[in-house]
Amino acid sequence: MQLTGKSLIGFGLGAGGAGSFRAFNPTTSTDLDPPFVSAWAAEVDRAAKLAHAAFATLSRLPGNRRASLLRRIAAQLEANATAIVERAAAETALPLPRLQGELARTCFQLRLYGEAAETGLWLDARIDHGDPQRQPQPKPDVRSCFQPAGPVVVFGASNFPLAYSVAGGDTASALATGCPVIVKAHQAHPGTSEVVGRCIQQAVREEGLPEGTFSLIFGPGNEVGTQLVRHPLIKGVGFTGSRKGGRALMDAAAARPEPIPVYAEMGSVNPVVLLPGALASRAEEIAAGLHASFTLGVGQFCTNPGLVLTVAGASTDRFLAKLTELTAATPVGTMLTRGICKAYRHGVNKFTTTAGVKELAATPSPASQTQVGATLLACSGDTFLARRELMEEIFGPATLVVRCADVAQLQTIVAALEGQLTATLHGSEAELAAASDLIAALAAKAGRLVCNGFPTGVEVCHAMVHGGPYPATSNGAYTSVGTRALARWGRLACYQNFSEAGLPAELKDANPLGLWRLVDGKLGLH
Amino acid sequence: MQLTGKSLIGFGLGAGGAGSFRAFNPTTSTDLDPPFVSAWAAEVDRAAKLAHAAFATLSRLPGNRRASLLRRIAAQLEANATAIVERAAAETALPLPRLQGELARTCFQLRLYGEAAETGLWLDARIDHGDPQRQPQPKPDVRSCFQPAGPVVVFGASNFPLAYSVAGGDTASALATGCPVIVKAHQAHPGTSEVVGRCIQQAVREEGLPEGTFSLIFGPGNEVGTQLVRHPLIKGVGFTGSRKGGRALMDAAAARPEPIPVYAEMGSVNPVVLLPGALASRAEEIAAGLHASFTLGVGQFCTNPGLVLTVAGASTDRFLAKLTELTAATPVGTMLTRGICKAYRHGVNKFTTTAGVKELAATPSPASQTQVGATLLACSGDTFLARRELMEEIFGPATLVVRCADVAQLQTIVAALEGQLTATLHGSEAELAAASDLIAALAAKAGRLVCNGFPTGVEVCHAMVHGGPYPATSNGAYTSVGTRALARWGRLACYQNFSEAGLPAELKDANPLGLWRLVDGKLGLH
Repeated sequence: MQLTGKSLIGFGLGAGGAGSFRAFNPTTSTDLDPPFVSAWAAEVDRAAKLAHAAFATLSRLPGNRRASLLRRIAAQLEANATAIVERAAAETALPLPRLQGELARTCFQLRLYGEAAETGLWLDARIDHGDPQRQPQPKPDVRSCFQPAGPVVVFGASNFPLAYSVAGGDTASALATGCPVIVKAHQAHPGTSEVVGRCIQQAVREEGLPEGTFSLIFGPGNEVGTQLVRHPLIKGVGFTGSRKGGRALMDAAAARPEPIPVYAEMGSVNPVVLLPGALASRAEEIAAGLHASFTLGVGQFCTNPGLVLTVAGASTDRFLAKLTELTAATPVGTMLTRGICKAYRHGVNKFTTTAGVKELAATPSPASQTQVGATLLACSGDTFLARRELMEEIFGPATLVVRCADVAQLQTIVAALEGQLTATLHGSEAELAAASDLIAALAAKAGRLVCNGFPTGVEVCHAMVHGGPYPATSNGAYTSVGTRALARWGRLACYQNFSEAGLPAELKDANPLGLWRLVDGKLGLH
Repeated sequence: MQLTGKSLIGFGLGAGGAGSFRAFNPTTSTDLDPPFVSAWAAEVDRAAKLAHAAFATLSRLPGNRRASLLRRIAAQLEANATAIVERAAAETALPLPRLQGELARTCFQLRLYGEAAETGLWLDARIDHGDPQRQPQPKPDVRSCFQPAGPVVVFGASNFPLAYSVAGGDTASALATGCPVIVKAHQAHPGTSEVVGRCIQQAVREEGLPEGTFSLIFGPGNEVGTQLVRHPLIKGVGFTGSRKGGRALMDAAAARPEPIPVYAEMGSVNPVVLLPGALASRAEEIAAGLHASFTLGVGQFCTNPGLVLTVAGASTDRFLAKLTELTAATPVGTMLTRGICKAYRHGVNKFTTTAGVKELAATPSPASQTQVGATLLACSGDTFLARRELMEEIFGPATLVVRCADVAQLQTIVAALEGQLTATLHGSEAELAAASDLIAALAAKAGRLVCNGFPTGVEVCHAMVHGGPYPATSNGAYTSVGTRALARWGRLACYQNFSEAGLPAELKDANPLGLWRLVDGKLGLH
């Protein structure tokens, strides 16, 4: 597939011309061809209008038609796997096996969300039959379900060029509900974005759906993204990235004449609590597991464990000795972008120059714009509590181990934490059985609790929650991974006293879509 | 029950002293005893801290304990019905039978939401069992459900002193999920608020729950409310009132260091579309129904039909003649407050002085601070499309009938409408069968569509949606009436690889709470 460097506006190519940019190969430190042309404001507007027009069709399709689109996108991605994975490797420095795995996960996700569109649980269809004889007033017939909210904008993530980018979870879940999608491509992998975008474009064509079902917009800065979020025809936003970027979108969306929801996943430090009994029996094993987790993918995961809470003592010393040894031996890795690399170095430097923080190990970092080593930092509970900036995320292969004076101080720190995507607890069987208060305290802070494991690795399934209280995400009532991700793109619609002919299929008495429904308070396939 | 005029801070009384205010009897135009003392900032802070402390207990109660609290509140309200209804009548000028009905509805609502707390559908409990043998990686055991988000603030509504005030739908749904509630009493019915608040206080005591479960705060202006919305321990807001007031709270909540959701129901004009065939056969009947609906309760309902779309012609003339006759004969009514009365007159005056708008009928309004007559206005479709201000809500017994040139113009107007709580469609059987595009267009604009009926009257049931796209509410994915109202107060929590002992009851394999759960993708009572 020959890259054009042009935005995909429906079935057409953008002309653009407000400037151009190139992808950068972080492994070779060279620019890549072709130049990518930024979209004009008029093209962004045209994409929004096409999406609005497509919504009329897409929103009324039954779930199985939307599932068919998602399956076709997955098949297109698989047919173009080599082109996708090779370009992604050049643009991100992620190893081929990781990218092959990520592509498989992306396709699995598309198919699972397609299934969810067919099953229709997200619709929450309900029927309360009327009773014209009720006194003192007749009871109306009331029926309701979720329906798609309208066109949405998706911002691709730098660290998941496939699974959380153009055909990633936000796009898949929005299309599954019947919402047209406009993707703002991440400037770090525009070529990957174009190849994937053209797969979606082709699938939309083959399914005979309106061209506004999908558009892909290029633009290097914030301008194009802000224009999209402010566009009156846009009804929702999905974002995975930095806290600063996510908050800016939240603020822009909240300040619109018609505010719209932004589902921003902004990362966190993912605290790992190691209770003394766990360390007493498994210090080295936990050190090895933690090391593998915080250095995985050069530490570039939203769920990277950047903070470890322990109680000072001999087992903790043993744990730290092992972790120090492993960290010092970590091979240098290439990060996704120069900006991420710079921010990582800045963050590590900020921590190591904070009074009371000790650098226990650091792989020497080469003089490179993109390559870094791993860093292990430590401080006392007192230092941590006195310095709120130590709660900030360092995106990359670094972790800070806090040696608390006792379990009480550890609990004080847990209570002081911000919202998190995950929190992890290691304990012996006896410790876990006695930890209900600690578990509740962690559950109050995080979207997902992990027991005796590590937070990296987010299973795509029905029960997964990749979310959490602010600032981990914009809204802790939602998840961006798992089939509940569809719920983000819906709004409620209710029909009172309509006859069978006037009702949408979801709410007809005959239940032609075979949905689970709450009928007169009883849940069933009726 | 002797009124104290003091805020209820947990089980105690506020001292306050930042000023005081009295209730006003709109029927007699006299101030009522006693004075109500505004809460100090320190008291508001104390209420928030008590709520935060209570949350630790309340959030971990099983649903049946929360249901028991709600039932006890209902019983307390019934035991104090006379005091509640008499004071409410004095403070609101609403007739006794209406208030008795509203109290019954409030108690029904408390019990229904209690049942919803027991059934636990809002929890959306899910289990995906693990598979340690899965290749290339073991599959984790992942379980999740909603849990209460934290203390919430409820703003009482002026027009529902019982059903949407201190013990109304927002409070009932929040307590049902396990969220402590701080109510900011509406200054128009402080005495009713105190009596109802003391019923809740007593029920909390009798249930042996922490005092921070409920507080009631007095304060005449916006200061106390803004302080509550900005308080870091508050995690959500419920509001029913004006668009200006709701938007101010939305903006304040979005600007917090940690933004929180505001569920604001801000009213709408509730368009009624009358297709020619319906008017041809039922012009007088529809006129009578519409008149009863728009003048009900002196027009003081969020779902009041303030805009009627018709196609000019003989049947429409017949409809208007009847509606003119009925409107002219409407008895004068007493509004809830002087402010609402003033705003009504201002709104009517603004419309009648707009070029192209004709006043077809108006009951003469007496020279009173609170009494008004009904008003019937009419204009052409061209005038309506040219004057966006005619889309604004006049809160009170007024309605504007638009005579469109044809059905196409009517559809243009529907497409131009803002978000609405309701939209109503009258049509003959043949018209409705051919109206799927119009129904979809109306469904895109409104939370609830009513067929061949009228929008006033909101049934409290599982399927009800009292919501709608902005500006009708802050978020069209939620409803403030019906059992889905519980969903507003939750956030997601997920548990990975926990043993049975560490899991909350909702997610244990044995399903001790008897919940509907999605287990490995299958929905069931398992």
